Amino acid sequence: MESEPTRVMVAVNESTLKGYPHASISSKKAFEWTLKKIVRSNTSGFKLLLLHVQVQDEDGFDDMDSIYASPDDFRQMRERNKAKGLHLLEFFVNKCHEIGVGCEAWIRKGDPTEVICHEVRRVRPDFLVVGSRGLGPFQKVFVGTVSEFCVKHAECPVITIKRSAEESPQDPADD
Amino acid sequence: MESEPTRVMVAVNESTLKGYPHASISSKKAFEWTLKKIVRSNTSGFKLLLLHVQVQDEDGFDDMDSIYASPDDFRQMRERNKAKGLHLLEFFVNKCHEIGVGCEAWIRKGDPTEVICHEVRRVRPDFLVVGSRGLGPFQKVFVGTVSEFCVKHAECPVITIKRSAEESPQDPADD
Repeated sequence: MESEPTRVMVAVNESTLKGYPHASISSKKAFEWTLKKIVRSNTSGFKLLLLHVQVQDEDGFDDMDSIYASPDDFRQMRERNKAKGLHLLEFFVNKCHEIGVGCEAWIRKGDPTEVICHEVRRVRPDFLVVGSRGLGPFQKVFVGTVSEFCVKHAECPVITIKRSAEESPQDPADD
Repeated sequence: MESEPTRVMVAVNESTLKGYPHASISSKKAFEWTLKKIVRSNTSGFKLLLLHVQVQDEDGFDDMDSIYASPDDFRQMRERNKAKGLHLLEFFVNKCHEIGVGCEAWIRKGDPTEVICHEVRRVRPDFLVVGSRGLGPFQKVFVGTVSEFCVKHAECPVITIKRSAEESPQDPADD
């Protein structure tokens, strides 16, 4: 009998170009790489833990055009954002289901770097997969990189999967 | 039919405490982690590429007590060192053979960081596994870390496997 499945946490986020429910190019790449190169045909040997961190500021920005007149409006906005995040996770969970690999998916709010490291401590995956835009040092000054922070601070092994050049949009900060 | 096996490069080195043919604690850990958490029972799905970089200075130091009187003495020393490296690789290749996972193992001489990154470019593995002593920032000042360099510079995804606290020798710089 095989031992417990290897628990792989994959951090996923939404596209900066298309928004919800579309996944970012780099997180989709990280997910697909994990299935193709690690899980392969051994679907019972792995369990994917899909974490989506909703960034508060970005949500606020998306709703710059909204008018809030009552407490209910805020509740509705929160529910709308939650629904968007759920759509994103649905994409990944459906893929896992098609292939037959076990998974769990959940949403947290906050700063992705802190939340990912916190969830690693809580959930204790065998390792963490994060996508990366593969930016150069000059581009990084302006956008920060979640993957580099996780490599340094997450309390589990971390593997960073970079987008390939041909997958990158015109503005490399987009994803 | 399954696609080509996933090619995993694992960098291995000798123990600072016991020397050849003993593997370092961290490289043995990285190797065993790869088998347990990634390869699992799917032995036909993976191929391990075992690279051992012989550090020139260390070899010289080992031979501080030797006397070189003829060109033959140097040739013999080189052959002895090569034999030591082969013994180290034999340990890992035997393990792969027992389990039934395909492997290739080879030795290169030079600076581990540069050689590993060079071999990644040449061999193009799907990812690289490196062990790490898991040193703190103060300890790192004195010993340097191959894993951090590889994470930054190797042209493939890199996963760093740290020794656990209970595996660490009294002097954490030892391995």
